[in-house]
Amino acid sequence: MKYGLIGMNGRMGREIRTLFTEAKHEMVLGLDKGEEFILEKPEVLIDFSLPGGLEKTCSIIAKYHCPLVTGVTGYNDDRLSQIKLLSKKTGVVQAYNFSTGIQLLLKITELLKNHLPDWDVEITETHHRFKKDKPSGTAKMLGGLFNNEAPVHSLRLGNVVGDHTVHFGGLGEVLSISHKALSRRTFAEGVLKSAEFILTKSNGYYSFSEVLFK
Amino acid sequence: MKYGLIGMNGRMGREIRTLFTEAKHEMVLGLDKGEEFILEKPEVLIDFSLPGGLEKTCSIIAKYHCPLVTGVTGYNDDRLSQIKLLSKKTGVVQAYNFSTGIQLLLKITELLKNHLPDWDVEITETHHRFKKDKPSGTAKMLGGLFNNEAPVHSLRLGNVVGDHTVHFGGLGEVLSISHKALSRRTFAEGVLKSAEFILTKSNGYYSFSEVLFK
Amino acid sequence: MKYGLIGMNGRMGREIRTLFTEAKHEMVLGLDKGEEFILEKPEVLIDFSLPGGLEKTCSIIAKYHCPLVTGVTGYNDDRLSQIKLLSKKTGVVQAYNFSTGIQLLLKITELLKNHLPDWDVEITETHHRFKKDKPSGTAKMLGGLFNNEAPVHSLRLGNVVGDHTVHFGGLGEVLSISHKALSRRTFAEGVLKSAEFILTKSNGYYSFSEVLFK
Amino acid sequence: MKYGLIGMNGRMGREIRTLFTEAKHEMVLGLDKGEEFILEKPEVLIDFSLPGGLEKTCSIIAKYHCPLVTGVTGYNDDRLSQIKLLSKKTGVVQAYNFSTGIQLLLKITELLKNHLPDWDVEITETHHRFKKDKPSGTAKMLGGLFNNEAPVHSLRLGNVVGDHTVHFGGLGEVLSISHKALSRRTFAEGVLKSAEFILTKSNGYYSFSEVLFK
Repeated sequence: MKYGLIGMNGRMGREIRTLFTEAKHEMVLGLDKGEEFILEKPEVLIDFSLPGGLEKTCSIIAKYHCPLVTGVTGYNDDRLSQIKLLSKKTGVVQAYNFSTGIQLLLKITELLKNHLPDWDVEITETHHRFKKDKPSGTAKMLGGLFNNEAPVHSLRLGNVVGDHTVHFGGLGEVLSISHKALSRRTFAEGVLKSAEFILTKSNGYYSFSEVLFK
Repeated sequence: MKYGLIGMNGRMGREIRTLFTEAKHEMVLGLDKGEEFILEKPEVLIDFSLPGGLEKTCSIIAKYHCPLVTGVTGYNDDRLSQIKLLSKKTGVVQAYNFSTGIQLLLKITELLKNHLPDWDVEITETHHRFKKDKPSGTAKMLGGLFNNEAPVHSLRLGNVVGDHTVHFGGLGEVLSISHKALSRRTFAEGVLKSAEFILTKSNGYYSFSEVLFK
Repeated sequence: MKYGLIGMNGRMGREIRTLFTEAKHEMVLGLDKGEEFILEKPEVLIDFSLPGGLEKTCSIIAKYHCPLVTGVTGYNDDRLSQIKLLSKKTGVVQAYNFSTGIQLLLKITELLKNHLPDWDVEITETHHRFKKDKPSGTAKMLGGLFNNEAPVHSLRLGNVVGDHTVHFGGLGEVLSISHKALSRRTFAEGVLKSAEFILTKSNGYYSFSEVLFK
Repeated sequence: MKYGLIGMNGRMGREIRTLFTEAKHEMVLGLDKGEEFILEKPEVLIDFSLPGGLEKTCSIIAKYHCPLVTGVTGYNDDRLSQIKLLSKKTGVVQAYNFSTGIQLLLKITELLKNHLPDWDVEITETHHRFKKDKPSGTAKMLGGLFNNEAPVHSLRLGNVVGDHTVHFGGLGEVLSISHKALSRRTFAEGVLKSAEFILTKSNGYYSFSEVLFK
């Protein structure tokens, strides 16, 4: 496919380019701070930039009528509405985490929550010492499944890419489900899956969970 | 409820009696090697004895027309057919493991298998040094979900009650689901749930998974 | 041996009695709320009561000139001095945790701390939902090795007896050491080791670590 | 320091060059298949090539009188004797694994083995699906501490860099020590430590354990 990439020089941007190149996809539009090129019309636009760039993203989509895969975090309500509006006219996949394993972790946590209503729940996450937010966005999503009533423990250890565990404890047994990210590549693979998915839709708003499980 | 218990002096028999007494249920029929008493008609019969006792179990059910919860292991095909036949006339719950957590472990393993067809799978189980079989019955059930093609590793460590983990490994991430039994009480709780369930059925054959999830 | 036991009806008291009886030791003096008996002079006195009972303990030792193994927690400085004073005249083993594994966990944590000065450290502990203190006494001891500068995470899950893990994270690797208590029996075994040890000493103050490693 | 590197284009060679460059060390001699350059006399020679290159390595050392750090694996007894002989005249550090964490894992395992003679021991290791040997070299070293009588379980999962755990199980408790490698960088750091160490020695044969702990 021919794709456009906003935020092409960020950590995720570079990871996406590496994987997409391996898969023989061609970057025909690229954008980042002080850099911009357009070779031809992209079939799909991928956005891993910052919230402030949404107007630019919308104008590119208006011009080329292509669908969007966005992993931008930190949009306010206004901008989230703008994205929903966009999805009336073109296909949009929006997610904060493009890992298949994390989506399954969320799905299983939901399943266990429903079957084990009176068990204790604890959430732990471990990341590298350079991570600035605490708890991680994924831990917040997991906590959200329990109305933020499950304790979340954040460990910061060396250079760990990212581990998340949800522990369920009953009086006679303990069940726990753990996810370990080994590299950022796993997220780029989710972006690729999403791009392939959204190419088949004419419009509509989709989560990454819908990309995987529908 | 008024219940009968075959194998009342075994390890599981004693655990069941303790829990059922706490829950105000009354043992009205008891049977074990060289011991037998019948106070009145049981509403449900629980069997944790040995395969050879099946005829006796059937004759009690024929006499009192009560449903059966059986955790006997090691039946041959003939005896398994006999139990299926019995379930035409009365309700039967049959299982080798009455832990809620293990049933959920099986369910989640199935779900992950379907979503992660090209990931590697490894199964580990840890039990006390006195355990005679290797791998454990539960590990065999887990392995059965993968046509016994997933490696099973059996650790024997001190006095560990029973741990099982299924590991799924992809190129960018690892997902694992672990179950730890803390005490045999958890199995007695599953027997109680099964007894309560089968009291509401006039006949039919049920697995413990159906008791929990239907 | 002939032993005395203060706090004989508490959870630890009963565990000690069971193990000591199995090992053919004879309780000749017993004390608890509203209960007291003395059959003959004890060779060693074991105290698992409350801080307020120290005077009574001292008076028994004064009378019978026997050594002391004490697991009482919560003494203030005055009472701690009193115990030190007592050890001038008779042998005393004092500890808050009589598990061999926990002593090794402490020893190894100290060793790793010295070899990995610039690694991150995180401590996690998991106990049953009924535990009142947070973090556990053992987690506090572990934290103390790092001047309380290592984060401690306390999980409360179902009926878990007690797990402690110390995680060390460097930029290229992670080392972690975990201890899981399977039953309270392990503590009673440490008390027995301490009683056998102190029988061979005429006086002096000993930690459980000295019982094990000297 | 000014260093020479034999096997400069292999996986470990490139990792070493990256780290040494960051630390402002200068490669003045480089060698690999079909490639060779010498700018000036190296202060230390690092060898991560194949066993067959030992004569070349020896001739370089004879010429420049510099010490050696070698991570070459698979030497036969003749060549091992040759290295020992070399260490009469110059300092040599030889190891198959330059990770600090693995050395500590070995040291702690030895310590626990001595303190817990009657506990059960189990060893598990997990590596990526592309790893050819089974069990890993490190797992063999760990097993060697128990005269190869401890069971070793090898899991192959996706892209895992390398995990090793030694489990000790007693009747009342379990202790386990785990090492997880996050990247090959950790090995390059051990090579740097060894190079700095051997610069201070005029001759002698040293293991990486001696570099770390002496």
